[in-house]
Amino acid sequence: MQRWSKLFIPTLREAPTDAEVASHKLLLRAGYIRQLGAGIYSYLPLGQRSLNKIIAIVREEMNKIGQEFLLPALNPRELWEESGRWTGMGQNLFHLQDRKGAELCLAMTHEEVMTSIARNELRSYKQLPQIWYQIQTKFRDEPRPKAGLLRVRQFTMKDAYSFDVDQAGLDESYRKHYDTYVRIFKRCGLEFVAVDADSGAMGGSGSQEFMVYTDAGEDLIASSASGYAANLEKATSKLSPVEDLAPTGDGLPELIHTPGKGAIADICAFLNILPSQDIKCVAFMGSRTGHPEGEPLRPIAAFLRGDHQVNETKLNAVAGTGELRPMTPEELELFIGGPAGYLGPVGIAQGMSGGSLNGLKSGKPLDRLKGVFRENPTEGLRTIIVLDPGLDGRTNLVAGANKLDYHLRNVTPGRDFTSTVVADIRNINEGEPDPIGGEPLRLGKAVEIGHIFKLGTKYSESMGARVLDANGKEVLPIMGCYGIGIERILTAAIESSAAANAGEQYALPAAIAPFAVVVTITNVREADLLAAGEKIAADLEAAGVDVLLDDRDERAGVKFKDAELIGVPYRINIGKKLAEGQVELVDRLTQTTTDLPLDAITAHIQSLLAASKL
Amino acid sequence: MQRWSKLFIPTLREAPTDAEVASHKLLLRAGYIRQLGAGIYSYLPLGQRSLNKIIAIVREEMNKIGQEFLLPALNPRELWEESGRWTGMGQNLFHLQDRKGAELCLAMTHEEVMTSIARNELRSYKQLPQIWYQIQTKFRDEPRPKAGLLRVRQFTMKDAYSFDVDQAGLDESYRKHYDTYVRIFKRCGLEFVAVDADSGAMGGSGSQEFMVYTDAGEDLIASSASGYAANLEKATSKLSPVEDLAPTGDGLPELIHTPGKGAIADICAFLNILPSQDIKCVAFMGSRTGHPEGEPLRPIAAFLRGDHQVNETKLNAVAGTGELRPMTPEELELFIGGPAGYLGPVGIAQGMSGGSLNGLKSGKPLDRLKGVFRENPTEGLRTIIVLDPGLDGRTNLVAGANKLDYHLRNVTPGRDFTSTVVADIRNINEGEPDPIGGEPLRLGKAVEIGHIFKLGTKYSESMGARVLDANGKEVLPIMGCYGIGIERILTAAIESSAAANAGEQYALPAAIAPFAVVVTITNVREADLLAAGEKIAADLEAAGVDVLLDDRDERAGVKFKDAELIGVPYRINIGKKLAEGQVELVDRLTQTTTDLPLDAITAHIQSLLAASKL
Repeated sequence: MQRWSKLFIPTLREAPTDAEVASHKLLLRAGYIRQLGAGIYSYLPLGQRSLNKIIAIVREEMNKIGQEFLLPALNPRELWEESGRWTGMGQNLFHLQDRKGAELCLAMTHEEVMTSIARNELRSYKQLPQIWYQIQTKFRDEPRPKAGLLRVRQFTMKDAYSFDVDQAGLDESYRKHYDTYVRIFKRCGLEFVAVDADSGAMGGSGSQEFMVYTDAGEDLIASSASGYAANLEKATSKLSPVEDLAPTGDGLPELIHTPGKGAIADICAFLNILPSQDIKCVAFMGSRTGHPEGEPLRPIAAFLRGDHQVNETKLNAVAGTGELRPMTPEELELFIGGPAGYLGPVGIAQGMSGGSLNGLKSGKPLDRLKGVFRENPTEGLRTIIVLDPGLDGRTNLVAGANKLDYHLRNVTPGRDFTSTVVADIRNINEGEPDPIGGEPLRLGKAVEIGHIFKLGTKYSESMGARVLDANGKEVLPIMGCYGIGIERILTAAIESSAAANAGEQYALPAAIAPFAVVVTITNVREADLLAAGEKIAADLEAAGVDVLLDDRDERAGVKFKDAELIGVPYRINIGKKLAEGQVELVDRLTQTTTDLPLDAITAHIQSLLAASKL
Repeated sequence: MQRWSKLFIPTLREAPTDAEVASHKLLLRAGYIRQLGAGIYSYLPLGQRSLNKIIAIVREEMNKIGQEFLLPALNPRELWEESGRWTGMGQNLFHLQDRKGAELCLAMTHEEVMTSIARNELRSYKQLPQIWYQIQTKFRDEPRPKAGLLRVRQFTMKDAYSFDVDQAGLDESYRKHYDTYVRIFKRCGLEFVAVDADSGAMGGSGSQEFMVYTDAGEDLIASSASGYAANLEKATSKLSPVEDLAPTGDGLPELIHTPGKGAIADICAFLNILPSQDIKCVAFMGSRTGHPEGEPLRPIAAFLRGDHQVNETKLNAVAGTGELRPMTPEELELFIGGPAGYLGPVGIAQGMSGGSLNGLKSGKPLDRLKGVFRENPTEGLRTIIVLDPGLDGRTNLVAGANKLDYHLRNVTPGRDFTSTVVADIRNINEGEPDPIGGEPLRLGKAVEIGHIFKLGTKYSESMGARVLDANGKEVLPIMGCYGIGIERILTAAIESSAAANAGEQYALPAAIAPFAVVVTITNVREADLLAAGEKIAADLEAAGVDVLLDDRDERAGVKFKDAELIGVPYRINIGKKLAEGQVELVDRLTQTTTDLPLDAITAHIQSLLAASKL
């Protein structure tokens, strides 16, 4: 029997002032964790109990589809050179040298090790499919550790890798993981959505993230009642219908004087039009890496509806870039042809060839513009013009004239300007209809608890894994990778519960709480209360319930507060009503209190716990 | 149901040639592990299954006496500076820098972190005792990784730490660990001994190591049927009685010419005496660190019975040194006064003061001898003379005369020479009577699987942990630390079993084998064999037995070999005898084969498994 008086549960009245998010504060106050360094935490007994329960659920479900490994954290440099990630991971990868000067890293993921085992041991399609997983400590030199266990430098991860002989096999392994993740997160009592995620940068062919809505999250996701869910980088919505303006004059672009109306709100008010009838222009210089030394920059002009916002991840994917920065005034002049506030698509400068450097509109090339061409002086740069579908097929729009204090009206895409590409580059907005069922979209911050990803052949190719297929032909095994953040399950559960309680309280689902039930003896100096508490706790334990007996010689108020702090979902108060054969059951998940006769307690708790299972 | 055809069990016909010890070869051949780098291994599904079973046993037993934590592997330098171990651990500690240049290490043990939690959270004796443990990956930059999982750079350890208010409390926490370790190792099916270990270097007050006899081990231990056990550095034995020689002449030391009889065997044959009647002299220069720059060397003359061997660890403890090297001929001349082979205690030179450097017996000081005194030119060095108890009280011994080709007889310690100290400095020998029950000692190599240690106040003092005792007085909590090497349990079990099978085969105890039973269908193309195998395996699984069904379409011989290779203790062969309603049970632990009727199998296996439990 676990007794509070014997356990190490250092609860705190106040959270340290540097704790930001609710889960961080509550994990500290509840004595689940203590900080050792930036992004480095010790898990105390309550935290470890909770994490052990999560791990047991993950292991049980993963064992149904895969086989457990345990791979080393210490990885030799050579292995990561093969995949190109020794440098590719940048400073996120912890590097070290051993006593002989050999270089090692602390693995933050295990594609390299798993692929090296696969290439050494797998020879034939007959050995496939394989699903290999582990539950293990990962290291990542996070630049800005924060938010308690949400952004750390050392954490526990379930990572899995699948190897299949063909795409159909990968699809099946991926589906198995999807189904398994759904079961795991449901068993952990989480409300989650699986969102379509951007898989471009890793070169894969499909990817979903399992997300829990919480303001502590750093991702924005959209979902709706029709089952649609995507992160903001992938989310689309049905366009709200808008009315085009009637043409004026001869219906061709007409220059109008609009002094001081550079902002969309101002031009709309001035011309009495809707923002959806105006063309917004956002201009960027793009680069592949964000460190453009040695690679040409790409000028990008993004045109979208005046009431829409550009999503830079979508735009990067369209432009083939990785990082964007706004154009400088000189670059605007060069690559668009106008000043900020009056940029537009008609007669866009579209960049220039390197040879025309001396023929700039602005009269003379600026030194910093020369820098743009330094690496590629003769090839030059042409502006990539991206048109959002919200403007495609529209007529008589208003746009900047690329001339200070002037706009054009009667602008019709296709007729008056052409674009390099038409592509969705906008953020969806809360409440817009989702693209599949038309239900209103919920848009909010979320925390990622899992990720499934169709990797393809990136690693089998770069690391030389090969198997013979059924025709005796050498093929690259097709891989998937799949992760679950163990601590994230705990923090997401706390954040979700705390959100409903002003961030001050939470109750964990019984499956992952350190204890399912706490039996609180309100006064241990009263022999009958003490005896009843002991008996109830013993009965519950005998019935297989994970119970904690609060047998401390403390005031009832202190004990109630502590029990609430540690997040146990069910509390049984042994108090005055015992004289009438009754005890009080506090269900912290439903926030209800019920009096129950002594002999009904065990059965009642068992039925509550059974109901909370899948 | 686990089916061999679906599992990843890459067995090998041959072990890699660089595998030295039996467990290394067998773990590789059985597909338990694969090497990733020097002293760095990946655990494949069979290995991980076995380790998970060991961990479950350790956790279950540890939870009876303590509380589980999980502490970070990444530790900040500052913490290890406090204990003095940032440099004290030398190159064994992996060091690294994060992206901001902050220095970290990979913890190889967690006294620092546990003590820092204790000093922050423990205030009163009322919170004591505490026993805190974890099961976690440890890192150690082992200079010569070898022997498979026996000497590695990354491994799994259960480490525990106790905090008590007084010595009696520590004694109790230590005893709890002792009892728990005994239960754990018994449940894992190991034959082990708990030996008294040297605790001097760590400043503790008591220490025992749990050892398993195996030639793959690197420690030497002695034990006997009376329950005595100690490692060689601590082991003592009752001295075998020896007869002293009768005096010759006037009974005083007498010079005898013994040309070419420098070896003990030769002088004994020449004088017709026993080695136990001869005085052996072993001469060392000792230093505290092995790097004597900047510290004075200590000349040491060790005298012991001619049939005894000096134990350098014992001698270091007596002389207050840490490292020993043999004296050079010049040093022998200076600090003993004779040549090798003829060294003796009578008229020993006993070193010299720095001022007498010019008055050396040998006529002129040698440059390298000057070096000895360089750091301490005036203080000088005096020889520490250590007498083993085997010579104490003896009479009429033979000894070297410190003169080439001469010995002395009639040498009687105490009368003819004095010693700095009388202390046990010898190795015990196989078969000698143990010091408590007089039973013959078994001496052999062994591998350490656990260690319990009374730490005392080393860390609470250096790191400033304090609690108030019952009188309101601040005291240092008294600590113990306790470790179990998880992989060592597996390797020790394999080594023990393989030793009985010429290193070629092994069978693990059912409690820690990856599977307790393998059901081998000798020919899956015979429908009745296949059906019977499926049914037996399903019945066993339903009865809670961890069973593996070998359903591969392979020849029976291959399947038998593979089953033996993976170390499963019980194999059920489904073969020809099925026609008579019989199957064959191979008990690999007892190496017996029995025919059993089909319907008796499950009950029989259950009884075998029950019998192997505690």
